[in-house]
This record gives sequence, C-alpha cells and structure tokens, in this order.
Amino acid sequence: MTSTEGFDYAPAPLPQPVVGPDEFRFAAIGLDHGHITGMSQGLIGAGGTLVSVYDPDPEKVARYVEQFPQAKPARSEAEILEDPSIHLVAGATITSQRCALGLRVMDAGKDYFTDKAPLTTLEQLDQAKAAVARTGKKYAVYYSERIHVEAAVFAGQLIEQGAIGRVLQVLGLGPHRLRAGIRPDWFFEKDKYGGILCDIGSHNIEQILYYTGASDATVTQSQIANYNHPQYPELDDFGDANLVCDNGANGYFRVDWFTPDGLQNWGDGRLFILGTEGFIELRKYMNLATDDGPGHVYLANGEREEHYNVFGKVGYPFFGQLIRDVLDRTETAMTQEHAFKAAELSVKAQVNARVLAP
Amino acid sequence: MTSTEGFDYAPAPLPQPVVGPDEFRFAAIGLDHGHITGMSQGLIGAGGTLVSVYDPDPEKVARYVEQFPQAKPARSEAEILEDPSIHLVAGATITSQRCALGLRVMDAGKDYFTDKAPLTTLEQLDQAKAAVARTGKKYAVYYSERIHVEAAVFAGQLIEQGAIGRVLQVLGLGPHRLRAGIRPDWFFEKDKYGGILCDIGSHNIEQILYYTGASDATVTQSQIANYNHPQYPELDDFGDANLVCDNGANGYFRVDWFTPDGLQNWGDGRLFILGTEGFIELRKYMNLATDDGPGHVYLANGEREEHYNVFGKVGYPFFGQLIRDVLDRTETAMTQEHAFKAAELSVKAQVNARVLAP
Repeated sequence: MTSTEGFDYAPAPLPQPVVGPDEFRFAAIGLDHGHITGMSQGLIGAGGTLVSVYDPDPEKVARYVEQFPQAKPARSEAEILEDPSIHLVAGATITSQRCALGLRVMDAGKDYFTDKAPLTTLEQLDQAKAAVARTGKKYAVYYSERIHVEAAVFAGQLIEQGAIGRVLQVLGLGPHRLRAGIRPDWFFEKDKYGGILCDIGSHNIEQILYYTGASDATVTQSQIANYNHPQYPELDDFGDANLVCDNGANGYFRVDWFTPDGLQNWGDGRLFILGTEGFIELRKYMNLATDDGPGHVYLANGEREEHYNVFGKVGYPFFGQLIRDVLDRTETAMTQEHAFKAAELSVKAQVNARVLAP
Repeated sequence: MTSTEGFDYAPAPLPQPVVGPDEFRFAAIGLDHGHITGMSQGLIGAGGTLVSVYDPDPEKVARYVEQFPQAKPARSEAEILEDPSIHLVAGATITSQRCALGLRVMDAGKDYFTDKAPLTTLEQLDQAKAAVARTGKKYAVYYSERIHVEAAVFAGQLIEQGAIGRVLQVLGLGPHRLRAGIRPDWFFEKDKYGGILCDIGSHNIEQILYYTGASDATVTQSQIANYNHPQYPELDDFGDANLVCDNGANGYFRVDWFTPDGLQNWGDGRLFILGTEGFIELRKYMNLATDDGPGHVYLANGEREEHYNVFGKVGYPFFGQLIRDVLDRTETAMTQEHAFKAAELSVKAQVNARVLAP
C-alpha cells in the first residue's frame, strides 16, 4: 500500500520549457505580496524571459533584483507598459489595486498575470471583464494552491484518468500562519486585502470549480470570524463556505490564520476529493508529524489504497501553457471565464458572509 | 516528531471495571443494528452483567447468544421489562422504533441505552423528554464514533488539558461503506432509518457539541443527495451540515456511503479540531495507505507536531461512567440534555436539508 508497490497512475511527463530566450518576455509590476517570486519563477521555468521590474518602493525592487538579477529596474510603470517587447506583466500589488493595475496593463496592449485574489469587488470584476472584451487581452490569475502545487496538479491528472469516477465533493482546508509582525499594514485593512474568503478563499473556490469540472456555482453558506485577534479588528482569522455547483457536485472549504508555531510549515493544506468510485486526499505542503516533505497524494478506490509522493515528479504545466496561450491566443492554462468565476464567487462568499461572534 | 519522541499529554489511566458481578444487570432488546454488539461489549467490559436478550427474530437472538452465551433468550419483551433485577435495557432496534422501545423501557422503571440515532422525529423527541421527566429514568445514547473510539476519547482529554487552547471549529468526515447486499430493507426506507444526517450525522453533531463544549447550536446549512444509487430512491448517499454553536464556535461535517471497496476499513473517519493554540487531527479507524491500524491522534500546537498511536492505551470510560450514573443517579458519562440536543439538531438538519440534484 505504499508508493513503491504500484504506480498505475503515473504523473504526466514533467513539463519542459515551451519557448527559447526572448520568445516570451515579461516584466513584474507591484511587489506587495511575496507571491511575485513564485509567479516569476514559474514563468522563467517555462522558458519565459524576465525583462524588467517596477514598484514605487525601491527596497522591494532591490529585494526582487537580488533574486532575479536579470530584471532591470524600470524608472516608472509607464516605462514597462510602453516597452513593445514585453508580452505580459506579472503583478502582486495590494489586492484591492490588482484590478486597476490590470486595466492599465491590458489597455497598454499586454496580457496580465496577477496574484490571487485577482480583485476585491464585483465592480472591479465588471471593469476587468469589460477590459478583456475591449482589449482582447488576458487577465490571468495565480491560484497558486492548485497550479503551483505538484500534488494538486497530479490530483487533476488522476481525476482526468477516471481514478475516482465522477467527482461529488471537494473539501479543502487552507490554514495559514499569520506572522503578524512581518505583515504590512494593508494586510489588516479589509478594503485592501478583501477579507479572508476573497483572499485565501479564492484558492479553494478555484479548486472546487476545477476538480468538480463545474462552470458555475452558488455559495449556499459562508461565514467569517475574528475569533482571537482583537488587536486587528479588520482581520478575518477564520472563514468557511459551501458551494453547490451547476453540475450537482458540491464544495466546502475552511480557511484560517491559526497555524501554530510548532508546525513545520506555514500551513497543513489539505484537500479531500470524493468521487463515486473512490477518493483522493492531498497533503500538499507536509505530511503531519513526519519529515517526508511536501507532495503527498493519497488515492483510495475500488482496487487499492495508494500513497504517491510526487515531489519533483509532476512540475507545473500551468506556466508553459500560459506562455503558449499568450503567444498563440489560446486558453489552455485556464479559461478567462473560470478565473473570473472563481473571483466572483470569492467576492460573493465574502460579501454575504455571516459574521460569527468572537 | 513521532510518538516515541515525547508524550507530554499521556492518556488518562485505562478505565477499570466499576462494579462486581450482578451489581449492574442489563439486557438487550432489539438487535436490528450490529451496534448492539459494541454496546454490550462496552457495558460488559466495565463490569456489567448481561442477563437476557429479546428480539422478535429468533435468528438474530441466536447470533447474539453465540457472541454472548451468558445472555438468556427471553420469550418476550415483557419478560425482560418485568424482571426487577435488570437496571438497564440496551437496544438497537430499527431507528424509527428506538423511541417507542425507550418509552416502554423507562415506563417499566429501567434506564434505556439506545444505539444512535436515538430517534427520528421531533415528536419522538418530545415523547422521550416527557418520559424522562415522568419516570426519572435515563435515555442514554451510544454515539459510538466518539465514546467507543480511543482516538476520540483521547482528543477530549487533550482539549481538557488545554493542548490546543479554545476550540474554534470541529470538522468531521464520516464516510461509510454501503455493503448494500447485506443491509436489511429498513436501511433504505427513510421513515425508518431517518435520513443520513439523522442517522450517521448524529455522531458528528454530538462530536461538534462535545469538543466545542457547546450546549446548543443552530444548523445554518444542511444538504443531502442521492448521487449514485437510483436503485435505492430513499437512500441519502451524501449529506453535510454546518452548525454555529451557542459559544461562538462552529462545526461542519460530511457523511457519505462512498467508501470504496479498496479501502482496508469501512471508512476513513477523520476529525479536525481547530483551536486558538493548535489543532488536532484524528484518523480514527486507519491511517490511509499504511498498515498501522486504528487510533491515530495528531496534535500540532505552539511547541510541536506529535503523532500519538493510542490503540489499547485509552479505553472507553463512557461505559463505566454510565453504569455508575445508573446506580448513583448521576450524569457523568453524558448529560441527558446533551444526548437529546445532538438528536434534536440531527433531526433538524435532516428535515431542513436542501436536496441536491443527483
């Protein structure tokens, strides 16, 4: 019953770079969230050429250039937007400003790749949709807890191969470590970070839509709380929501900022996917109380229980697909509709959430 | 980080028998659910003396007597109810008939110990409450997935010792294997089994109330489905519900009949208890894709991650407490109010459930 006894469902071949140098050129604007590192690494790993970087804060730029010396600091955002050689701008600005940045990027004739949550209000969603229609450009989203997690990618491959039959429910646990001392002020201002269901909830809603194969869903219950952080009155330290999908499947997720200091990692992210013929459990970032690292996929179906450790075996096909999508004007990595639908439901879950007593 | 490296939180001493032979005498009436075996074993293990058994079906009686030769088959239910030496009647009749049996038992001057769910309608609940008030007798419930599971008992001890601070959320997964071929007809008739949220959901609602320490809760969302068993139109093969407790904590659980045949056990029952200072995960009956047996408790808090294998180390204090409660007229094992509240919320979750499209 261990990973050595059988591997009926092998991961798809590791993705390879999809372009040569300078075929796909991108820049980074907005370094407020550390996710910009993963976004940049992902594109570079798929063959992308990082050209330049801009943030109003020179310290953030300096730290970025330390990691990515190939990025030339630009004197202004305009310098990047006016560079005709750049195909795409990756951004991880403050959540509530991500849409405005995207509008500027798309209006400059470039595709946009933003950290999640991609926006914080339904008005921004309307603006983003209108800009996509007007410019023909992409507003792609870094839903990292699926696209940049090998266990999560492999789960999609398992489902596609029919390993658990039809997906009935997706249940996600998204705990995070607060590390309040190193967070910027905007992290605790709700109109800026968008609330917990919009922010880290968007990861889970995207996964519910993705693994169930749904194109739409209804949020049937959502709630938030500030259970234990009165010093940050606008922080939601807990949230959860239930979704009913348009294909009958359903989803539930919980997100929170209660990862304790004794945990080896920032959060014991889990996903349980229930199917008619079996189930999958992901232990994405760690296997609790072991030193086994990340990348644990558990499968149980009519034949067996199986533990796949997929660390280093799956890779992240999203990034190469996105690059090809940009160059070929296709929608392989993720459809625009899907990216926006996850955002829409995240905002709705947040806006309509019951507020629990602390 | 394994169970051998530290055991700051040791289980309480194993419970010992609380009475000598014939100090606590009980009988079994109603053998429709196999739980009667566990109920009987639990009481016997705590020192109880099994006296007699009755079921209208002689085959069920014969199978019971094979396991428990000390049980004398009675010619009628009345023979047991009229035996003044018997303190308590344990019963696992058809779910919808459990209340009626309890009324007869209590009116005969004996305490009652029923399999869960203890009842299937709010009318029955009113009758049961009235009978308790009228007779002064107990209507105790075998919520086995907590009281007869060592991992679940130990989790209670951990919480009591402050291992995770204040409990904020209890999240339970209660998958079960259907084994439709060996189930009796009543198992598929909703007015008899009560629906999935009433039936196996009652385990989870009891656990939510217990671990959060709540005395009441509101069911804020519940849903059921028959996703994949059209041949059993009254079967709910899926259900879930959210509860908000009177102390601010909350709970979510999912129950289903989709345990696949390749699983080593009838269900990979899990419980996640989120606290302000850490969390607990229970892998009650198995540790997926291992041969490590049951009884896994994982704790993470400010100090460490810890894996406790508590198989054989905790025991089941409920049964001895129940016996003492019967003899001493105390409420140590479980309050009547708690047992009824879990039943009430289970019925409400079921009755008000959204029905998902298959």
